[in-house]
Amino acid sequence: MNAEAALSPKGLPIALDAAGGDFGAPPNVEGAVLAARAGVSVLLVGNPVALHAELGKYPGSGALPLEVVHADDVIGMDEHASDVRSRTGASINVCTRMVKEGRAAAAVSMGHSGATMASALLTFGRIKGVDRPAILTHMPARGGMTTLLDAGANADVKATYMAQWARLATVYLKVLEDQENPTVGLLSIGEEDHKGSALVIETHALLRELHGQGINFHGNVEGRDIFLGTTDIVVTDGFTGNVVLKLAEGEAKVMFGWIKEALNSSVKSKLGGLLVRTSLRGLAERMDPSTYGASILIGVKGLAFIGHGSANATAVKNALLRAARAHEGKLLPRLEAAFGETK
Amino acid sequence: MNAEAALSPKGLPIALDAAGGDFGAPPNVEGAVLAARAGVSVLLVGNPVALHAELGKYPGSGALPLEVVHADDVIGMDEHASDVRSRTGASINVCTRMVKEGRAAAAVSMGHSGATMASALLTFGRIKGVDRPAILTHMPARGGMTTLLDAGANADVKATYMAQWARLATVYLKVLEDQENPTVGLLSIGEEDHKGSALVIETHALLRELHGQGINFHGNVEGRDIFLGTTDIVVTDGFTGNVVLKLAEGEAKVMFGWIKEALNSSVKSKLGGLLVRTSLRGLAERMDPSTYGASILIGVKGLAFIGHGSANATAVKNALLRAARAHEGKLLPRLEAAFGETK
Repeated sequence: MNAEAALSPKGLPIALDAAGGDFGAPPNVEGAVLAARAGVSVLLVGNPVALHAELGKYPGSGALPLEVVHADDVIGMDEHASDVRSRTGASINVCTRMVKEGRAAAAVSMGHSGATMASALLTFGRIKGVDRPAILTHMPARGGMTTLLDAGANADVKATYMAQWARLATVYLKVLEDQENPTVGLLSIGEEDHKGSALVIETHALLRELHGQGINFHGNVEGRDIFLGTTDIVVTDGFTGNVVLKLAEGEAKVMFGWIKEALNSSVKSKLGGLLVRTSLRGLAERMDPSTYGASILIGVKGLAFIGHGSANATAVKNALLRAARAHEGKLLPRLEAAFGETK
Repeated sequence: MNAEAALSPKGLPIALDAAGGDFGAPPNVEGAVLAARAGVSVLLVGNPVALHAELGKYPGSGALPLEVVHADDVIGMDEHASDVRSRTGASINVCTRMVKEGRAAAAVSMGHSGATMASALLTFGRIKGVDRPAILTHMPARGGMTTLLDAGANADVKATYMAQWARLATVYLKVLEDQENPTVGLLSIGEEDHKGSALVIETHALLRELHGQGINFHGNVEGRDIFLGTTDIVVTDGFTGNVVLKLAEGEAKVMFGWIKEALNSSVKSKLGGLLVRTSLRGLAERMDPSTYGASILIGVKGLAFIGHGSANATAVKNALLRAARAHEGKLLPRLEAAFGETK
């Protein structure tokens, strides 16, 4: 952490990749306005003409803690993540560089997630003691939410990586959710210790050793436990984690489609549908990833939040609030401390 | 195939592990009665006293093609799968042995799935050319269902296994669902050919080679595609497949719970709930695994169907009908032919 950040953590703005995502500037700017109204300073990084035009739609936004930062280039959703190496002026690179230079508290992007990961990793580097950063995400669950990692940063992993992720996620929940001793489950295909792939069995042994020393290891959990909320954290490899995340989204989407069909299937159910509409909308919100804002790339030496390409303004706002909270709670120094790095 | 089976395929009964499952004999016997009424002969394998007592509850069942076969022992749900080696008199072993000896067309069990797999593998052996049998299962999807394998038989796999599973599943859908050229998707974390784990990338190359020669390879699919029904078949390792299956069940269960809550959240929605109840029940059925009856252990030299421990009578009936259809459609000889084994 640099001196400026340490002196005025609340004042340091969040750098938003305002051009990123499926819909470009509009949801980003609206989300930034909402976050600014909630007291979070935001740097809108992108094309100034477009961003100022968008900001003009919000009367009074001139008085909010919002600033436009110039970036001409943006890595498109269908371009290569590796482009971040050469296209130094791309909006995501401007965001992560401002964090690195202590001019922003965190980088937030709804754009190309591979590019955001690559930019953060290249610019920030890894926390000492962390072999591979992971994507930490939240999923709806009975009684609240389940924190899942890795949601897709690493398709091929080692047991040691997963053990490190359990420690990172534990600190994250302490800082962001005030959970004193969150439980950790290892995703497997049976609850018994000896069940699972060779990789999972090896990881199980490492987590067993760490129990009581930085993590609260519950043991193996199964696919169903993610929604049942059996543990606060579920650790898995980035292949399985990504499949889990996308399957859950796909299932919710298809089920909501079927509910809609069912409610339109007869005059009687149409009438009933009108009466239950408000209640079911609450359920849709509960299943909506935007409630949780964004995922964090955890394990890098800087704060980087990665949102859904289809994020709406609420999702952008929630991501910005979460980023600000991570900074205020000193997430990064606490992660570094947990991994024994002293400065 | 033995002579008896070849001569009277329709007449050969299905051996049901009538003691297996969370609820013992009652749903098994009821399911057998329902299947017998639909024209399928069933051997009820288990304790004769208990089974005859249960059969006594169904007037007229004496006239149905049902027969009780003696087996004193049953592998409990919490016992070890490896027990099938020593406990030769266990009901599941009696079932698979009758298939092996040509006295039954297929073995069906709602009991200990690991024990059923082990018993089938030990008793039947593998189809020549198949390295590892897999569990083939069906999941609800937009527009019908998605066939997934491996759903949990092999936690650690090789690319060659998955390529074989794609071929096995293709023949299965041709025989059981009359699908002439079912599409095969490889589960990955990105649609592009180069995306995924090292294992998936290697498998992709093998499936690409097989395209047009026994399989119709669509390319990579993601978690969401399982429910979207993008391909008829989704191939994955048994670790990921098992997580997928249990996650999908867990999500459906939790979502239905939330729907119930939502419909009880106000007087207005309670009233609406009464009106939509019938329509939503149709949705619950669509999500219910019992609609599809049972999974098959595919790749062994005999027919073995494995159901859910919590299976109800409908699930048992559907599993028995499916087993009979597999036998009548000569699934096993067709699988053997596809793998070049001539007899």
